[in-house]
Amino acid sequence: MSENKSFDELLLPVRNDIDRIDKELLKLFTERMQCAERVAEIKRKAGIPVLNAAREQVILDRVKKEAGEYGDSAVALYSAIMSISRARQHNMLKSGGVLRDLEQNSPKTLKADPRVICQGAAGAFSHSAALRLFPGQKPIFLPGFRDVFEAVHNGAGDYGVVPVENSDAGSVSEVYDLIMKHRMFIVGAADIPVRHCLCRAKGTGAVKKVLSKHEALVQCSAYLAAHDIETEAYSNTAAAAKFIAETRLEGVGAVCSAQAAEEYGLEVIAADIQNTDNNCTRFIVISREAVLPEDAEKISLCFSLPHTPGSLCHTLERFALLGLNLTKIESRPIPERNFEYDFYLDFTGNVHDVQTLALICALSDEMPRFSFLGNYKES
Amino acid sequence: MSENKSFDELLLPVRNDIDRIDKELLKLFTERMQCAERVAEIKRKAGIPVLNAAREQVILDRVKKEAGEYGDSAVALYSAIMSISRARQHNMLKSGGVLRDLEQNSPKTLKADPRVICQGAAGAFSHSAALRLFPGQKPIFLPGFRDVFEAVHNGAGDYGVVPVENSDAGSVSEVYDLIMKHRMFIVGAADIPVRHCLCRAKGTGAVKKVLSKHEALVQCSAYLAAHDIETEAYSNTAAAAKFIAETRLEGVGAVCSAQAAEEYGLEVIAADIQNTDNNCTRFIVISREAVLPEDAEKISLCFSLPHTPGSLCHTLERFALLGLNLTKIESRPIPERNFEYDFYLDFTGNVHDVQTLALICALSDEMPRFSFLGNYKES
Repeated sequence: MSENKSFDELLLPVRNDIDRIDKELLKLFTERMQCAERVAEIKRKAGIPVLNAAREQVILDRVKKEAGEYGDSAVALYSAIMSISRARQHNMLKSGGVLRDLEQNSPKTLKADPRVICQGAAGAFSHSAALRLFPGQKPIFLPGFRDVFEAVHNGAGDYGVVPVENSDAGSVSEVYDLIMKHRMFIVGAADIPVRHCLCRAKGTGAVKKVLSKHEALVQCSAYLAAHDIETEAYSNTAAAAKFIAETRLEGVGAVCSAQAAEEYGLEVIAADIQNTDNNCTRFIVISREAVLPEDAEKISLCFSLPHTPGSLCHTLERFALLGLNLTKIESRPIPERNFEYDFYLDFTGNVHDVQTLALICALSDEMPRFSFLGNYKES
Repeated sequence: MSENKSFDELLLPVRNDIDRIDKELLKLFTERMQCAERVAEIKRKAGIPVLNAAREQVILDRVKKEAGEYGDSAVALYSAIMSISRARQHNMLKSGGVLRDLEQNSPKTLKADPRVICQGAAGAFSHSAALRLFPGQKPIFLPGFRDVFEAVHNGAGDYGVVPVENSDAGSVSEVYDLIMKHRMFIVGAADIPVRHCLCRAKGTGAVKKVLSKHEALVQCSAYLAAHDIETEAYSNTAAAAKFIAETRLEGVGAVCSAQAAEEYGLEVIAADIQNTDNNCTRFIVISREAVLPEDAEKISLCFSLPHTPGSLCHTLERFALLGLNLTKIESRPIPERNFEYDFYLDFTGNVHDVQTLALICALSDEMPRFSFLGNYKES
């Protein structure tokens, strides 16, 4: 205790200095923000964009030089100050016309009785996702992700349901590439737990061997080994279920979803036979037009940044400023461009909020590659 | 022109104000950094850690209140200032003893003539990766990722070669989970292009049907459709190649790597039959002990952060401060903990650099869940 006391006593004069410095520093910062507003007003009248990278670099070079041994720290400080300042200027300028129109004019609810397109076959996990997202709708199944996107793009379907994460059905990359290629919007999302059943055709005997997608067999390896069941790879879980239902092979079963068992009239011998219970696949709903519900809670964005220290950080800072939480981030190098990255991000938030809209609009104005992918509810 | 001129004229007085403010602000900031150093010195003598979250919150609350309508901006400013200040304090305190020992005492080169373990079978893409990473070594193949990690953990092998990204062989999540579970280090990495060949057993006739992993068949769909070749799913590409070599089925081929064709003595009918050329799988080398080469260029970290606005941003800021580039970032929700995330990050950098080591040590002291995964070269 006495040591702590003396520690506090030692610290007191420094803390008093810090408090005095902070008072003055804050006053100057506020004055600087007011200057930024004067600049914004002049820029607004002259129709000139907020970001002036050359002027910012001049300031960064100057503070680095002036701050001597604190040069790097001063650059970090001023990167933050200029990013905060730009955010205020954008707020005043109401930039980002296209996104403002989108926010004003997009429908606020999904279509009633939509035509829903899924990849794979009836009984696949995308089927369960479609039923969760669009209860009572009978989805149409197409073989590939490409087909789903083309059907929605051509208007053959209203919405597509596709996996984007941790799926055994396909790769995230391909789906994101297709979103960008077809300029689709994300209008919904659901996390579907991956649960496997051991099934057989009704009236056939004890299961000695099962067919399923290789990954599903791996996910159920403990159960299958314990019950001495042989395995054979099949293209996907639903197709394996269908094959078993049609051929009624004696002693051969399938590992598939409960949905697939129901779809093909199979008997479920054991449910939830996967090794672990925390395996989920995230599905999203894609749409040709944006749908922006009043109570949307998740914002998806894609943008690219130059491969320079701090570029991502200063962008994230602006979301943090508004209290918006990052819930997912993924980087992907852009194949044709060295040292440049695409970032896929999900934030909590709603674009009908004035400040959130201003931020998205500002980023869309500042960044050469920026895509607002959607604002939706989680199912 | 005249409009531009008048714009510059209008802007001049504001810019002069900004320059004056910046001069004073920078002086105060430097004074504040000097105070931070005095605090660090007192803390060092008292053996007290750098981060004092309660004191930081008091300051944030105060500046928010004092800055009035600029409250949010002031909070952003001070979050940045405190993060910069903490970085300087850690630099002085030389915190993070365990990592400092690791940096001092780890070997700087990989073992000569190591026993290398791969998942899958000879001819799988992991085989190509192992040959690139350890030329001239004959890898040992084990069925699952779990087996590879256990073999390296138990000392049955020196190094393991496993995929971590965009692989058709397994999921990133599982490999990262195993790294954390076995507290493995990453000691190397290589990006291997995914290239498929159409092969048959020598002396068999025209290929009417091919066996391969489902994903490989999808990746070669254009070529196979154009040549009217039927497809059938198999557990993996190398196993399909082996099966074809052993059975010599008439008219049946395999889609596999050139490595697999060579391994099983198959004839390559067509090479590079995949739809696109930019599909890569990233492999890493896992090891029980850290290896920290003098010329290592990539640092891998895993840490968790509270799900609060800006937490990631302020961490990234500190890497940016040192000029370290982020080359990969991925977030994953922690299953048992709501609203908390694990982040997997790769940065350019070398831990033998004094400042970089200080940063890693500082983060390891500040964060309840922080893992230094390795510092290695890319092959």
